[in-house]
Amino acid sequence: MAGDTTMRSVRSVPITRLAGETRETRDDQVVVEEPLDIRIAGDTLAITMRTPGHDRELVLGFLWAEGIIRDRGDVSSITHCGRTGFEERENTIEVTLAPGVKTPLDGVDAPLFARRGTITTSACGVCGRRSIDDLLVSFKPVADGPPVRRAVIAAAVRGLRERQPIFALTGGCHAASLLTASGAHVATFEDVGRHNAVDKVVGSRIGKGALPLGDHILVVSGRSSFEIVQKAVAAGIPLVASVSAPSSLAVDLALRANVTLVGFARDDGMTVYSGAARLS
Amino acid sequence: MAGDTTMRSVRSVPITRLAGETRETRDDQVVVEEPLDIRIAGDTLAITMRTPGHDRELVLGFLWAEGIIRDRGDVSSITHCGRTGFEERENTIEVTLAPGVKTPLDGVDAPLFARRGTITTSACGVCGRRSIDDLLVSFKPVADGPPVRRAVIAAAVRGLRERQPIFALTGGCHAASLLTASGAHVATFEDVGRHNAVDKVVGSRIGKGALPLGDHILVVSGRSSFEIVQKAVAAGIPLVASVSAPSSLAVDLALRANVTLVGFARDDGMTVYSGAARLS
Repeated sequence: MAGDTTMRSVRSVPITRLAGETRETRDDQVVVEEPLDIRIAGDTLAITMRTPGHDRELVLGFLWAEGIIRDRGDVSSITHCGRTGFEERENTIEVTLAPGVKTPLDGVDAPLFARRGTITTSACGVCGRRSIDDLLVSFKPVADGPPVRRAVIAAAVRGLRERQPIFALTGGCHAASLLTASGAHVATFEDVGRHNAVDKVVGSRIGKGALPLGDHILVVSGRSSFEIVQKAVAAGIPLVASVSAPSSLAVDLALRANVTLVGFARDDGMTVYSGAARLS
Repeated sequence: MAGDTTMRSVRSVPITRLAGETRETRDDQVVVEEPLDIRIAGDTLAITMRTPGHDRELVLGFLWAEGIIRDRGDVSSITHCGRTGFEERENTIEVTLAPGVKTPLDGVDAPLFARRGTITTSACGVCGRRSIDDLLVSFKPVADGPPVRRAVIAAAVRGLRERQPIFALTGGCHAASLLTASGAHVATFEDVGRHNAVDKVVGSRIGKGALPLGDHILVVSGRSSFEIVQKAVAAGIPLVASVSAPSSLAVDLALRANVTLVGFARDDGMTVYSGAARLS
């Protein structure tokens, strides 16, 4: 059933599956996450993390929702740009508007819309690899830190749900928990945005002068995107676990930054995408 | 267990619960979503949608992840600002950095980081009500459109899962479907970001000159935030349904913009947050 687009949107990565007493190494699929630089007349309007495929539809829908176009005739062309044969080409898209169509870039200085929480690059072309390189200029890979027992991760994931009073009331709120590597609970915060919940957790420790958090682990509800791992790297947290799946760029960053990335941490086991050696 | 912060993070809204032959009207809880305008020396660095509570921790964590501060001493003060007694006050926060700490705003023109996909306001102070007002200047409330049968929504939600090949492979991808009001499938797209999946759906129809989509319904995986309803309003879609919960601001916008907002659409029924009259 999976067509060409689906194949471009999915990537195979080596994983270690831990379940009961078994430890299996094999390949598994993750969803591709890559930045898209949306440009109008050469200027960046927005950079958004997205899954490649149907970029043209994405850009048209985005321009419509922002009120920049009101008719399909308002767009003259949408083409991928950047150097041919380079990864950046896939991730940079140039919009030419019809004559007379105003843009939010007229009279102000760009970019107006940027991916929340990640570093905006002003150079031509953008790609996941560069996003990681940029990050590792500002922040070093995390230190090795202490080993973490699997039982600590399993208990942390179970404990997260019990520390979500907003979720309990609403059924619609994310959360992030910080624990020590030996499993002692440090802090949990909830927020409608996963990235905000992580910011609150890390921010609560900055005030106490506790960073870097080298002997801690971070547990998040929902999926692990690039942004979540980025925030862990910035805080020096060596292990990120969630009950759900990571994206390709989260895995890439975790591998480069020496972060142990655990997904699908549930009662029946867990999937380790990087740094399995840290688990004891 | 729920403390003061939890109480500020949750709001009671009237809902209609439809299950089997029963139709019950009562109050239910939704998570609060409001914009936070993060300013440094009066200039907006970022606007992010967040759940109020622990804004100080949020801002510290955000500044740290962005590499703007490297030590707690880099921040002299963090205070809510804006006009006293106005809602904007809660949603605008002013950071004073220690002398000599550089910011990304030095030498470039702000804002560098903006909430993805929504309109950045340059005026002092920001609040959810204003976000809605701003949107309704650009886009009118949606037209009443045809009634929609409950069975159509239930089938659309079930059908969404079957049209998610990337999710089937990865367990970690969002999706959005567009259907006619009578339930005929029009388009489904997947993306690591819910908002992107909706942009792709709407964008695919712009190319065909099919907007506004007054006789259609939108079904999304995951939760309904302000941004998802905003994109529906922009496209003129009168009904948004999801299997999960909406935020407070999504409900507020749906009420103002004449959108029927359905949450928790599962086999055992559905919760209607606005526009229940449209359901037959």
